[in-house]
Amino acid sequence: MNELRQDPITGDWVIMAPDRGARPHAVPAAPDRTRRAEPCPFCPGNEFQTPPELWRLTGADGAWRIRVVPNKFAALTPIDAPTRGAEGFVAMAAYGHHEVIIESPCHNADLATVAVAQVTAVLAAYRQRYRALAASSGTALIVIFRNHGSASGTSLDHPHSQIVSTPFVPPQAQQRLEHARRHFDRTHVNLYADVLGNELRDGRRIVSTRSDLVAFQPYASIVPFETWIVPRHPQASFGHIDDSVLDQLAGMTRVVLGGLREVLHDPPYNLVVHSSPLSDENNDYFSWHLQIVPRLGIAAGFELGTGMAINSVVPERAAAALRAAVGRQIAAGV
Amino acid sequence: MNELRQDPITGDWVIMAPDRGARPHAVPAAPDRTRRAEPCPFCPGNEFQTPPELWRLTGADGAWRIRVVPNKFAALTPIDAPTRGAEGFVAMAAYGHHEVIIESPCHNADLATVAVAQVTAVLAAYRQRYRALAASSGTALIVIFRNHGSASGTSLDHPHSQIVSTPFVPPQAQQRLEHARRHFDRTHVNLYADVLGNELRDGRRIVSTRSDLVAFQPYASIVPFETWIVPRHPQASFGHIDDSVLDQLAGMTRVVLGGLREVLHDPPYNLVVHSSPLSDENNDYFSWHLQIVPRLGIAAGFELGTGMAINSVVPERAAAALRAAVGRQIAAGV
Repeated sequence: MNELRQDPITGDWVIMAPDRGARPHAVPAAPDRTRRAEPCPFCPGNEFQTPPELWRLTGADGAWRIRVVPNKFAALTPIDAPTRGAEGFVAMAAYGHHEVIIESPCHNADLATVAVAQVTAVLAAYRQRYRALAASSGTALIVIFRNHGSASGTSLDHPHSQIVSTPFVPPQAQQRLEHARRHFDRTHVNLYADVLGNELRDGRRIVSTRSDLVAFQPYASIVPFETWIVPRHPQASFGHIDDSVLDQLAGMTRVVLGGLREVLHDPPYNLVVHSSPLSDENNDYFSWHLQIVPRLGIAAGFELGTGMAINSVVPERAAAALRAAVGRQIAAGV
Repeated sequence: MNELRQDPITGDWVIMAPDRGARPHAVPAAPDRTRRAEPCPFCPGNEFQTPPELWRLTGADGAWRIRVVPNKFAALTPIDAPTRGAEGFVAMAAYGHHEVIIESPCHNADLATVAVAQVTAVLAAYRQRYRALAASSGTALIVIFRNHGSASGTSLDHPHSQIVSTPFVPPQAQQRLEHARRHFDRTHVNLYADVLGNELRDGRRIVSTRSDLVAFQPYASIVPFETWIVPRHPQASFGHIDDSVLDQLAGMTRVVLGGLREVLHDPPYNLVVHSSPLSDENNDYFSWHLQIVPRLGIAAGFELGTGMAINSVVPERAAAALRAAVGRQIAAGV
């Protein structure tokens, strides 16, 4: 049973998950997430290797196209156990859901190269599971993410995403919500719409646009080629996204990932879908957004000590290169 | 000239340092910090490869034992240039100091294995440079750090530390100061002393103690074997540390690093010295402390999306292993 502990000095919460790295001796090896399974537990025929399936998308041939299963090494589990906080310290059960979305039966079906229809199906699965977890009790926030490449921290090559629900709104999300709320209180304009307006006027960091979405690189990108996709009309919850926006998001995600793959030669990256807490899903001040963070460097003592990232490629330059590559993807008929 | 940019959505500050990764084409390779220089610019005889020396410690033979030079790829530089913020965005010159402390003429003089006297000399250099930067104008906060092993983000094997001064107190440091200040306002007890009291009563996470210092692993360690060294009598500024505490800190740092080297087989790590902002160096609510963060895993989409770390080894178990190893170091006469 995992445990959520709060650091008394920093206020940060940490998940203690000893089963993830359990070894019979005191010396931890590299964490289990870098382990390579053989044969691949996500390939057809090995379904028995995963925990019991929660959802599947079936093709015309009756075979599965997408499977959703609980994470075998879940950070959070939907079991409400008593807390074991030491005296003077704050802890609680690591209650929540942690699911894996297996994106394709094909072991190397990279979202950066598959047909857009496959990306649409994956994003529809995101939305389906988002709505399912939103209906579960004890859930405060839902986060969807995807790790690509071993330098991204992924444990398995077979393309998959993950969706987690947390029992409270983590401090980092709280802070961003507060930041956006204060902006709205002050200006009566949604912060995301405001930033998008500034980015569209400036133009240098825009990667791609659709009728309802804009892809751009943040003015203060934390790493080279960090890219965001934001709806033009802010919408607090990813669970409320409609089919038309979902289709556009699939097309845009496909060409942005395809462009990054071309420009950076299949870089490792993390992709995160940020959304509002469930208690406040219809607010005017926040917007869901998709964040792609290529992992080209290693944060070191400077970042740990100051909390400030050092980025060696300004987004104006990176966005120009990615914009051109995305243009080539679109011209090629993706 | 680097630039400090504030992200309008997150409020975080990022240093744009295009010269660190400058390449003639748009595609960034792995960042320059992983570059291996040949011959080593920090070895004796190659002094001409570094920028002009700022300080040195000389041995009885007249040769240098420790050298301090400006970082050739500085994130912050003491040049106050006009800002170039785009319309609607906040930016400022990346003003500050960024120095390298070359810890020894010997290329493989690991702080985990050298004589304690050498560690004392390195920490005395920390304090000397801290005081020198504290006397410079335009400095708000001073951070000292050390990266060991390529997975820690270091660029050169030759043992060295770094010291930076920032032109404002970064949001992460501000937050910790606020957290400590609120605790003091509420309880009239210093937060660090309070936590140390709880840790000493509990005992399970204590690694080592001296008359003026305690080494322990935080209740909510962000990674396996994260270890802190904190003074028993809180002192806001590392610049105020006296010779007696400096000596104890050297002995303790040496055996903790030696213990980690034994238990984790020379792990990569980051070491950070946290201190109060210069404007508030005599406060009652904060304390300088030394943080050692082994780099055994890779933060992935989960951490990026939730801001919460997942730790696969509980500190009670890790501290027991490290405590035993530190005991062996001390028994061996270190």
